Amino acid sequence: MGIVGFCGHTGRTLLQILIHHPGVEVTYLADQDTKEFDKSNLCGIHPVRMEENFDPKEASQFADLFFLALPHTISMLFVDELLKNGKKVIDFSADFRFPDLSIYEEWYQTKHKNPELLSQAVYGLPEIFREEIKKAKLLANPGCYPTASILGLLPLIKEKLLEKEIIIDAKSGASGAGKKLTTSSTFSAINENLKAYKVNCHQHAPEIKMILERVAEKTEIDLTFVPHLIPMNKGLLTTIYVSLNKEMGTGEILNLYQKFYGSEPFVKVLGEGEFPQTRDVLGTNYCRIGVTANKNKAIIVSTIDNLMKGAASQAVQNMNIMFGWEETMGLL
Amino acid sequence: MGIVGFCGHTGRTLLQILIHHPGVEVTYLADQDTKEFDKSNLCGIHPVRMEENFDPKEASQFADLFFLALPHTISMLFVDELLKNGKKVIDFSADFRFPDLSIYEEWYQTKHKNPELLSQAVYGLPEIFREEIKKAKLLANPGCYPTASILGLLPLIKEKLLEKEIIIDAKSGASGAGKKLTTSSTFSAINENLKAYKVNCHQHAPEIKMILERVAEKTEIDLTFVPHLIPMNKGLLTTIYVSLNKEMGTGEILNLYQKFYGSEPFVKVLGEGEFPQTRDVLGTNYCRIGVTANKNKAIIVSTIDNLMKGAASQAVQNMNIMFGWEETMGLL
Amino acid sequence: MGIVGFCGHTGRTLLQILIHHPGVEVTYLADQDTKEFDKSNLCGIHPVRMEENFDPKEASQFADLFFLALPHTISMLFVDELLKNGKKVIDFSADFRFPDLSIYEEWYQTKHKNPELLSQAVYGLPEIFREEIKKAKLLANPGCYPTASILGLLPLIKEKLLEKEIIIDAKSGASGAGKKLTTSSTFSAINENLKAYKVNCHQHAPEIKMILERVAEKTEIDLTFVPHLIPMNKGLLTTIYVSLNKEMGTGEILNLYQKFYGSEPFVKVLGEGEFPQTRDVLGTNYCRIGVTANKNKAIIVSTIDNLMKGAASQAVQNMNIMFGWEETMGLL
Amino acid sequence: MGIVGFCGHTGRTLLQILIHHPGVEVTYLADQDTKEFDKSNLCGIHPVRMEENFDPKEASQFADLFFLALPHTISMLFVDELLKNGKKVIDFSADFRFPDLSIYEEWYQTKHKNPELLSQAVYGLPEIFREEIKKAKLLANPGCYPTASILGLLPLIKEKLLEKEIIIDAKSGASGAGKKLTTSSTFSAINENLKAYKVNCHQHAPEIKMILERVAEKTEIDLTFVPHLIPMNKGLLTTIYVSLNKEMGTGEILNLYQKFYGSEPFVKVLGEGEFPQTRDVLGTNYCRIGVTANKNKAIIVSTIDNLMKGAASQAVQNMNIMFGWEETMGLL
Repeated sequence: MGIVGFCGHTGRTLLQILIHHPGVEVTYLADQDTKEFDKSNLCGIHPVRMEENFDPKEASQFADLFFLALPHTISMLFVDELLKNGKKVIDFSADFRFPDLSIYEEWYQTKHKNPELLSQAVYGLPEIFREEIKKAKLLANPGCYPTASILGLLPLIKEKLLEKEIIIDAKSGASGAGKKLTTSSTFSAINENLKAYKVNCHQHAPEIKMILERVAEKTEIDLTFVPHLIPMNKGLLTTIYVSLNKEMGTGEILNLYQKFYGSEPFVKVLGEGEFPQTRDVLGTNYCRIGVTANKNKAIIVSTIDNLMKGAASQAVQNMNIMFGWEETMGLL
Repeated sequence: MGIVGFCGHTGRTLLQILIHHPGVEVTYLADQDTKEFDKSNLCGIHPVRMEENFDPKEASQFADLFFLALPHTISMLFVDELLKNGKKVIDFSADFRFPDLSIYEEWYQTKHKNPELLSQAVYGLPEIFREEIKKAKLLANPGCYPTASILGLLPLIKEKLLEKEIIIDAKSGASGAGKKLTTSSTFSAINENLKAYKVNCHQHAPEIKMILERVAEKTEIDLTFVPHLIPMNKGLLTTIYVSLNKEMGTGEILNLYQKFYGSEPFVKVLGEGEFPQTRDVLGTNYCRIGVTANKNKAIIVSTIDNLMKGAASQAVQNMNIMFGWEETMGLL
Repeated sequence: MGIVGFCGHTGRTLLQILIHHPGVEVTYLADQDTKEFDKSNLCGIHPVRMEENFDPKEASQFADLFFLALPHTISMLFVDELLKNGKKVIDFSADFRFPDLSIYEEWYQTKHKNPELLSQAVYGLPEIFREEIKKAKLLANPGCYPTASILGLLPLIKEKLLEKEIIIDAKSGASGAGKKLTTSSTFSAINENLKAYKVNCHQHAPEIKMILERVAEKTEIDLTFVPHLIPMNKGLLTTIYVSLNKEMGTGEILNLYQKFYGSEPFVKVLGEGEFPQTRDVLGTNYCRIGVTANKNKAIIVSTIDNLMKGAASQAVQNMNIMFGWEETMGLL
Repeated sequence: MGIVGFCGHTGRTLLQILIHHPGVEVTYLADQDTKEFDKSNLCGIHPVRMEENFDPKEASQFADLFFLALPHTISMLFVDELLKNGKKVIDFSADFRFPDLSIYEEWYQTKHKNPELLSQAVYGLPEIFREEIKKAKLLANPGCYPTASILGLLPLIKEKLLEKEIIIDAKSGASGAGKKLTTSSTFSAINENLKAYKVNCHQHAPEIKMILERVAEKTEIDLTFVPHLIPMNKGLLTTIYVSLNKEMGTGEILNLYQKFYGSEPFVKVLGEGEFPQTRDVLGTNYCRIGVTANKNKAIIVSTIDNLMKGAASQAVQNMNIMFGWEETMGLL
């Protein structure tokens, strides 16, 4: 396997998982910060190539699948060449998440370079699209907020139990913002502080809306989404407020969730009165979910590790599915 | 002035404010941890008495007003005696916040010892009850979550612009929980972690609901309230989701807020596109508010220092009003 | 294998390592908090027994080796029975670290229950006692501060290059103190705070001194040891100040260290001008060391994960040696 | 008074103190980030001028004293003009701390622009140079590490009780590094991490050495100084290791310290067995000191708020002295 962008938060997390994955050999690594990378983090493995600049053509000879842990708008430059060479691609960016080109171009403020590939990309949320993922050549790995949000809502959406208005109050640790340097990414700016940001204008909102509407079979959803920056390194929690189209008890909803996710290896539904903490999922591929209801209102709390189920380990789960391996391989 | 419970988080904060208040002399202090108190924190002042045990009768000779920074269910034991001796009381607990005895007894799981005093207690949120506060002998200082929540909603409620359903997603630093020792109050339990707690069953929910309904002139409000514990010492932020009974633009709502709070010394309404951070209000008596709206939906973010406007400095603001002093005295 | 005390910080860390260790089956678990343990943390393994109370006699039928992750003074109650039943024991407490009974009884303020076993206990620092560990039945796993301190000093001590006075300024995250509840273990007491504690009277000082003197072949060492509590969950760093008995350059010392530790799988000596950060070793069994020297003075900085090389993963390294397995098995 | 650089960590802290200082009017403010400054932080005061660019000539008409909260090598560009106009200057940078030009130019890697002013600059540590400060026109405000280090050592140095070798293991929160943006100043780089930096090559080492040697009347001191970055916003603690030239008990040394600092308003010597925490001094101008001794070794722990006694409030203490005011004015 190859990782492009292996020195970022997500890339490093992915590298550690793949190094210990019994079915995988890491053969190719590229990152512009390769020179500063401490090779002791390779735990004794020896990739065939470690490059600063990624040349998809040349790289293609060294791996069957490439993980692109690159910023939005960069990934799309490389995918075409990789696919032409018969390689599989798991892309961490948003570049191939939206079949509807206009949504992407509006929210990411850029012209798409390879819109013709959008139709063959599969959205990599196994709990919904497992069958499509099995056959995918180009997989768009979901965003962190969408993963937690959609998994928190999926059983209710699927069973058509929701009114159209959904409110998601989301909270994430600082690694969610990547390694960019800004005045708002310093320790002093984040430590002992709390803020909402991109209030109702975060780019993950249309991603959540799109998938929920697809699951709901085109019923329109009215989504309010407000993310908050929490003074911690990792962890993501969403508190979701919905109206049901009938009165349901907490036990009834939990039953539904437990049944729905019963065979899912990485979704854990908690018992009545229990709610998840981010700490419970750190370093794991799990999503943990708690629910409470009162009359026709329900509150769902879901939590993931933003770098794991929200990025790197979910990509590995997708890889396992794409190669027909045991879905939990390397992830427990 | 006297402070009963001056060694807790709130009591200490209050003491520091009063020491520097130009109109106040701190003459009486009581706390069961008095012996462990480091007197250099008195900054050179010399109270007439510092006791471990509070005897309201004896204490009455040493001060005109007593701040009771005591746990719920304890304050009510002392108030009657103080009032009989002609003293004024500012109580930090919930014991006198609810005119409706049954709400208090249900949510605080205790029998009230002095229900006959409930009718004369004034709820100490100056932005609503300034006139009543002027004449108050017994003031119930508001809870931290209610202060931020109510101030965030007040202009819309007052103008009868809201549908009855209100969702408050609240977040607080760890000092909000006081100094109790539990397995969930350790550093390891809170640092690098995030959780919702008392999901839709926090005792501040009925307090918020009560005041909002009073302002709304008995219109029933359907309140959802979920608090979260943030890994920081201080600061409180609420993200409030409401439906308007007509479509309004962000600018229009901000205008309303700026007009409504124009003469309030401690409420700051931010400009369009701006939202407050908890850091902005740390150590101050300010509540900062940002708003955004879309069609008939609005999102309000309000933030306070939970130990200041959420407790100690709001009590001092109330004291200033009760004594007819400049309302901002000792607080800027 | 069996773990007694698997619900504490160290026990949980150990459990996670053993679950993924290819040569090990976890067959027995005991902890008084077993009922509150979330079984999803077992990652699908099925121990034969999970008990609240540890009965060494009964437990002996279920495992060949027992890890005792118990508090000081408790471990010693169980070891005799386990050894009698032919079991191997790796003890995390200090109970069997001191061959000299009087040092133990003075520093741990207790009478030893099984002093006759002290002579057969092996101190489990592989970098010094690998040969003895191979034959050990009763292994005393080192303390966290001693591990980082001794590894930082070992090459210089071994080569008899040190004057007798050694100063160790040590810093640890909060998990080092275990899960006890005290007023000094709360979030408010530790977050945004820094303190020295047990200044020159910490119980790890005699442990460090004992091992260093053993390595130095009975030359007396004059040790000053001051630990500090850092507002972070995990990680331990020691800054060590020594005088050399001759002038040496940084390069010369680094050469010595690199040669000394060249074949050690878990000690990493950094290059000139480089110093380790705790983050570099989190979740690993590594000790990373940086050195600088000027004339006859040297400063050594060493860092470990206090729950890993400082406890759980070092125990696994010891187990690997005791069973004649690849020393790095399950640890890379 | 005027503040140049009022938007940095130190400048903002200074501004808040001056706003509440009863003897001071803030009449002039300059900072290149003036546009982003939230004027509600002015608490209602109205400076005559708020500029982006500081012109010392023009500014001179608006204030009697200028605080220069500017980076090293920048302050020296402005001082000459201010002094010529009869203004007093308190400079936060290192530009005028070293009478010996060569030390400054070596450690700050720059050519000094106004070396002729060095001889009239007074080093602003009141506990040593109070008399000189009274007459100072140009005051060099001390560095944060030097303040805590020197105050921790002063009584022993003054009494000539020390051997020449001194080891200072220093620890500081992140605000000590200012607001510069680097990969090592992000939240992810500092939170849950600990590191030594500039090991034995920090620019505060020659400053500490210079002042200690001046106090010791030219006896040479052999200083080892290692600073560490602690994951917290504010607070600074030094752990100092010295050898005494005779055996002394802890009580004896504490007596000496208590006597020495008895009349100092801002140095607090703790009792036997007590050591300071950074939390105790946050937001204050205090330095708190604890000591322990054994035979001829002593360990001193001193702590300050790095932005207060380590910068802003110490500057105000110096101003009070320079103007002949009560030394504690505006600082208690």
